[in-house]
Amino acid sequence: MAPLYVARPLLPSLDELNVLLAEVWATKWVTNEGPLHNRLESALAERLGVPVARLFSSGTAALQCAMLALDLKPGGEVITTPLTFPATAHAITACGLKPVFADIDPDTLTIDPRAVERAITRHTVAVIGVHVYGTICDDPGLQALCSAHGLWLLYDAAHAFAAEKAGISSAAMGDLSVFSMHATKLYNTIEGGLITTRDPAMSERLQLARNFGIASEEEVKSVGINGKMSELHAAVGLLNLKTFEQERDTRRRLRGQYDAIISQFPGLIKQAHQRDVLQSEQYYMLRVEPDTFGASRDDIYARLKERNIFSRRYFWPICTDYDSYRGAPVASLQAEPVVERIKTTLLCLPFHSGVEPKHVQIFGEVLEEMAAACLATV
Amino acid sequence: MAPLYVARPLLPSLDELNVLLAEVWATKWVTNEGPLHNRLESALAERLGVPVARLFSSGTAALQCAMLALDLKPGGEVITTPLTFPATAHAITACGLKPVFADIDPDTLTIDPRAVERAITRHTVAVIGVHVYGTICDDPGLQALCSAHGLWLLYDAAHAFAAEKAGISSAAMGDLSVFSMHATKLYNTIEGGLITTRDPAMSERLQLARNFGIASEEEVKSVGINGKMSELHAAVGLLNLKTFEQERDTRRRLRGQYDAIISQFPGLIKQAHQRDVLQSEQYYMLRVEPDTFGASRDDIYARLKERNIFSRRYFWPICTDYDSYRGAPVASLQAEPVVERIKTTLLCLPFHSGVEPKHVQIFGEVLEEMAAACLATV
Repeated sequence: MAPLYVARPLLPSLDELNVLLAEVWATKWVTNEGPLHNRLESALAERLGVPVARLFSSGTAALQCAMLALDLKPGGEVITTPLTFPATAHAITACGLKPVFADIDPDTLTIDPRAVERAITRHTVAVIGVHVYGTICDDPGLQALCSAHGLWLLYDAAHAFAAEKAGISSAAMGDLSVFSMHATKLYNTIEGGLITTRDPAMSERLQLARNFGIASEEEVKSVGINGKMSELHAAVGLLNLKTFEQERDTRRRLRGQYDAIISQFPGLIKQAHQRDVLQSEQYYMLRVEPDTFGASRDDIYARLKERNIFSRRYFWPICTDYDSYRGAPVASLQAEPVVERIKTTLLCLPFHSGVEPKHVQIFGEVLEEMAAACLATV
Repeated sequence: MAPLYVARPLLPSLDELNVLLAEVWATKWVTNEGPLHNRLESALAERLGVPVARLFSSGTAALQCAMLALDLKPGGEVITTPLTFPATAHAITACGLKPVFADIDPDTLTIDPRAVERAITRHTVAVIGVHVYGTICDDPGLQALCSAHGLWLLYDAAHAFAAEKAGISSAAMGDLSVFSMHATKLYNTIEGGLITTRDPAMSERLQLARNFGIASEEEVKSVGINGKMSELHAAVGLLNLKTFEQERDTRRRLRGQYDAIISQFPGLIKQAHQRDVLQSEQYYMLRVEPDTFGASRDDIYARLKERNIFSRRYFWPICTDYDSYRGAPVASLQAEPVVERIKTTLLCLPFHSGVEPKHVQIFGEVLEEMAAACLATV
């Protein structure tokens, strides 16, 4: 059996792509806010229900541009979760700012506003919530806290494309929402990023931040980097916009199949099901309580790997395990932060339209074998 | 006549591109150091005569990754020239470092090591020289200074792809050389960047810096961002590598034609011709001395524009004219920095294989008309 990975990029047909590339080649306008790029920005703003949608070369470049657009001064502290992809913390550090970590809620695994409150100092300038695995943060809680303390509220919405909570688009939460459109994402542009906001005044600042601050041939207005998306990547984005909902439907069905299997095993816990949430279906994450299940997350990972199924211990290591942040405190309501206990229990399964019934069956078999072996030992 | 711009991207045929894209689509490995990416890195290292060539998503991302790889701490000062594209200074600022400006040599217009020396403080951590318009910096002078003061020496070689001085590749100068492969460059990958170095020990640090510091599934070793080049852009790069020398030949002939015209006009000064230099032929830059020629750089720019030829007042504004750095001192040997006098005299002409004999003729006519009008006025 061919190896199966956690993610597989949704790609348009090369024939369709060629029609768009022929347009690009005809004008030779290949980057720098070209026609396809601009069409994609409009289409995304409409699809996500926000007035402003700005494209970037990557989700990380978008995070950096968000901090530049907000003019966050070097040395300022930005509070975020340690349970995230390295990009979140590293983008903060790479901007000359300091990431400060706050604990997660034990049910949603998203940043806990009460922990954030404990991490606030006079140097704090912003909070970045992360909608991990598509689970939506406590936006009302974070917004109330940030408003009270005069802090910017950003979301790393890399996992929450086209998600909604109580009818509110994930793109319309906080001051800025930052998406990744990397190949591993439900909706992808190969490499790409997006910032959305309800605030039209942010639009120009974001545009300046991604294009060196250049306002005109005669004026450089602010600090900016190269955060531009090329026409090649925008072409992929325009085509994938037509098919990602179909991919999401497939994943939704797959979630049901995985859920049915793991609910048979004590000690395996499904991802939080949030009321009123339209899930992005970015990841299928499960938690393994080894004392109850009888084997650890790492055991399941290893056994699946033997069958050529590559799950992912995601997120692990967490930020405070990296060389760069080791020993950094995690503000928490507990003596031992929740995230420390949880981090070795998380496993993401292959979750895309390349997952076939035989793969799901193998997953079920592996769990049964492991559970049976544990019973035999007892 | 169709408008003519300073740059026009060198592009492969879509048929050729499709052969490579079919390879990519077959494996679905579309980014994250894919096969085409790795082939391109090897090809560039060989072509440029260096042991290490690392690809990036853009020249600016490459600059940021260079500073991350060198672990330059926020607050440190990096000395560079004010006569450069915004990316040079902004990449420094966006990393939380401070750009400090030093004056240029009046002949080569590259940063003057004697001016750099005056700008050094105890906070200085690095110097970034810029090979403007393909003119190579005083590398021995800068290297001696940086060695004496224990500073990193970087080059912004965005204009100096495949250039050589005295047989030494521009890719082998300083500690790190940073190239842009943006669409406007002689050799382009649509959007792209490259770092080259003679030091094999830098290779892993650069790789980590562009991929979130991720060393393995289990280890995040250093601070990094997303500086990855996709397979789509790498495909364009592989194909353009076969044709850029032909484009450079065309430009070399065009330089001869422009040179012949402007040498007829007192007050028009050619770009410094450097002995022993293989020019990148990135730009054709001329200087306009208005008192002698009888009209200014801006006058020529405006007159060419009327004829649908779009030259570029490049670099103008200079960094110390931007809102972000206005009033920043320029360390200089002169009371008034050379760069202040020079900045309003620089004009870059359309310089690529799309420039036809009729365009060159119009350029000559415009200059003749302007010179005649000035004589009539005298």
